[in-house]
Amino acid sequence: MSAIPTGQAHGSSERPGRIMAGELAEQPEVLRRVLDEGAPKIREVAERVAARKPRFVLLTARGTSDNAALYAKYLLEIRLGLPCGLTSMSTTTTYDARPDLQDVLVVTVSQSGGSPDLVASTRAAREAGAITLAVTNNPDSALAAVSEFHIDILAGPEKALPATKTYTASLLALYLFVEGLRGGDVEPARVLPRLATELLARQPEIKQLAGRYRFAERMVITSRGYGYPTAKEAALKLMETSYIPALSYSGADLLHGPLAMVDNISPVIAVVTDGKGGEALQPVLDRLRGRGADLVVIGPSAQVDQASAGFVLPTGGVPEEIQPILEIIPLQLLAYEVTIARGQDPDAPRALAKVTETH
Amino acid sequence: MSAIPTGQAHGSSERPGRIMAGELAEQPEVLRRVLDEGAPKIREVAERVAARKPRFVLLTARGTSDNAALYAKYLLEIRLGLPCGLTSMSTTTTYDARPDLQDVLVVTVSQSGGSPDLVASTRAAREAGAITLAVTNNPDSALAAVSEFHIDILAGPEKALPATKTYTASLLALYLFVEGLRGGDVEPARVLPRLATELLARQPEIKQLAGRYRFAERMVITSRGYGYPTAKEAALKLMETSYIPALSYSGADLLHGPLAMVDNISPVIAVVTDGKGGEALQPVLDRLRGRGADLVVIGPSAQVDQASAGFVLPTGGVPEEIQPILEIIPLQLLAYEVTIARGQDPDAPRALAKVTETH
Repeated sequence: MSAIPTGQAHGSSERPGRIMAGELAEQPEVLRRVLDEGAPKIREVAERVAARKPRFVLLTARGTSDNAALYAKYLLEIRLGLPCGLTSMSTTTTYDARPDLQDVLVVTVSQSGGSPDLVASTRAAREAGAITLAVTNNPDSALAAVSEFHIDILAGPEKALPATKTYTASLLALYLFVEGLRGGDVEPARVLPRLATELLARQPEIKQLAGRYRFAERMVITSRGYGYPTAKEAALKLMETSYIPALSYSGADLLHGPLAMVDNISPVIAVVTDGKGGEALQPVLDRLRGRGADLVVIGPSAQVDQASAGFVLPTGGVPEEIQPILEIIPLQLLAYEVTIARGQDPDAPRALAKVTETH
Repeated sequence: MSAIPTGQAHGSSERPGRIMAGELAEQPEVLRRVLDEGAPKIREVAERVAARKPRFVLLTARGTSDNAALYAKYLLEIRLGLPCGLTSMSTTTTYDARPDLQDVLVVTVSQSGGSPDLVASTRAAREAGAITLAVTNNPDSALAAVSEFHIDILAGPEKALPATKTYTASLLALYLFVEGLRGGDVEPARVLPRLATELLARQPEIKQLAGRYRFAERMVITSRGYGYPTAKEAALKLMETSYIPALSYSGADLLHGPLAMVDNISPVIAVVTDGKGGEALQPVLDRLRGRGADLVVIGPSAQVDQASAGFVLPTGGVPEEIQPILEIIPLQLLAYEVTIARGQDPDAPRALAKVTETH
C-alpha cells in the first residue's frame, strides 16, 4: 500500500516533488543499511523459517507492496521450487474463509504494517496453522505484532504518497530472505548501493525521456519474468503521480491480446532484463518494432540501440534476479519527471483532485 | 487467451460485430448445454480429483481464461478452504523451475487448449507430481491430451476475437467442478439460462449506457470478492474491442491508491454483487459518490438507484457465487455497443490496427 502522508505534503512543499525527490535519493543509503544492518537478522529469520520446511507460500499485500510480493513469488518459485500464490484478501476478511494452512508460509508485505485488513488476514492465517512472516518498515506495527516472524526493511519514514525507497528496500529484504531460505550467497547484492547511486546521477537523461510522455493519454509497460513486477510497479507509479493510465502486461499476454491497442496509439515502455526474461521478451520487441510502435527500452545497451529511445541499465555482472532492485529506479524518476512536466505535484497527487472536486 | 479467428472475420462480416453478437446471443443455450450434458461428466471428474485429496491449487491461464481462473480461485478458497495461487508461467517455461507438486492440483484453463506454453507448463506440472486438470473448449486439444483430467466447456466454435460464450461457459464449468469437489448441490445454477436470456433482451438499455462512453479516454472498473474477476474481464473486453484504456481495481486497492485519478476524469463502473462482496464495496461506493465521480453500477436495484446510472441485475434468489456468470453479460454487451458507437468493428479489432500500421 502507498504511504498516507503524515503531514500535509502539498501545503508544506517548498517546491513540487521535493519530498518524493528526497526519498528517491535516499535509496543507495537505504540499500546499504539493509545489507549492513538488516542482512544478519534476515538470515536468522530465514534459517528459522527454513527449519519449519514450508511446502507452499502465500504472499499478501496491496499496491506497491503487492508488486514487491510478486517479485518474491518469482524468486521463491525459480530459486527454491516452492509453489506460491498471491492472497485474494477478501476471501478471509469478507467471506471468512478458513483454509487449512499447515506447512504454508504466509508472507505479508506492508510498508506501514498498519492496515487493518492485512492484520486481520495475517492473524487468521496464523490461527489456521500458517508460519507467518511480516515484512514491514515499522517493527512496532500491529502487523509485526501478530506475525510469528518479522523483517524490518529499515527504510526510515516515507512521507510522499508514491512509495519509492520502501519498494527497493522490500525487494532487497525479500531477496536476502529467499537466499537465506536456500542457504545462498548474497555477495552479488553488495554492488547495488553503488549502482543505484550511478542511476540516480543520470536524472537528466530521464528528464529528456519524460518530454515524450508529457502529452501522452495512455501508456503500455511490458516485461517478462523477473522484470514483470517492475513493469507493474512502474505503471502504478506513473498513474499515482501523473494520472496517465498506464497499463502493464506480461509480454506473453500482450502478444495474444491487447497488441492492437499499441499501434501508433500508445507508447510502449519495455523493461528488458539481462537474462532469460529479456530473451523471452525478444519476440514481443520484434513485433512492436515491426509495427512501428513508439518503443522505449529500459535495459542492456544492445536492446536500447534497437528501440526508438531508451535508458541503458548497468547490468554487466549483476545477476538477473537482483536487476529489479535497480531497474525500477529510472522508472521512479520517470514518473517524477513526467508529473513535473505536466505541472502537477508528485508528492501529493490527491491535492490536484481536491481542487477539481465538485463537492 | 482470446480466440484467434479461424476465418478472416473482418472481411466476411456483413456488418461490424455480427460474429460477436451471434456468440453473445448463444450464451443461454451454451449454459443449458453445460448444465444438461456437461454436469454429470464434470461431477465424475470432480469426484476422482477429490479422492486424491489435493492440498493446494495452482491455476494457469492467460487473458479471458485468466479471469475465469481467478473466479475459480475465489470459489476454491471460500467454499473449500483450499489455498490457491495463479501460476506465473514463465517460471516454468523460461526459467525451468521444477517445483515439487505432490498434493497440488494444477488447473489449466484455455479456450483453444492449443497454446504451446500452456501445454509445456502443464506437462511439466504433471511430471513434477501434480494432479492436472485441463478446462478447454476442445477435447481434442494438445492441452487436453497432456492433462490427466479434462473438462469440456461445450461452447461450440468461437470465432470473434473477443471471447464471450467461452468465458461464461468456463465459469459455469468451474463452478460445477468446485461444487463437485465438495459434494455440493448445483441446483441453484438451473436458473442461469433463463436469466441470461432476460439479460440479453435488455440490450437497448445497454445501448443507451454506451452513449456516455463513446468519447471516454479512459475508464475505471471496480468490484470486490466474487465480482472482482468480472471487473477484470469487463476491462479486458472493453480494451480488446474499443481500445479504451480500462483499468480494473479491487475496491480496496482503489481506496488506497488510484482514487485521485477517478475524480471527474475517469468514469467508474462498479460491479456490485448481491452479497458480502457488494457489502464490502459499500465504503468505496460512498467515497466515489461523495467525490462526484461519474458512477455506473451494475448490480441490485437499491445500488443502481444511488448511482449516476446503472443496470439492474436480477439477483434475487441467485447465490452470490454464481452471480458472476450473469453480471458479465451486460458488460460484454457494453463493450460491443461502445465499440459500434465509436465506428469500430468488435469482431476483429486488429483490422483497425492494420489500417493504421505505418508499414
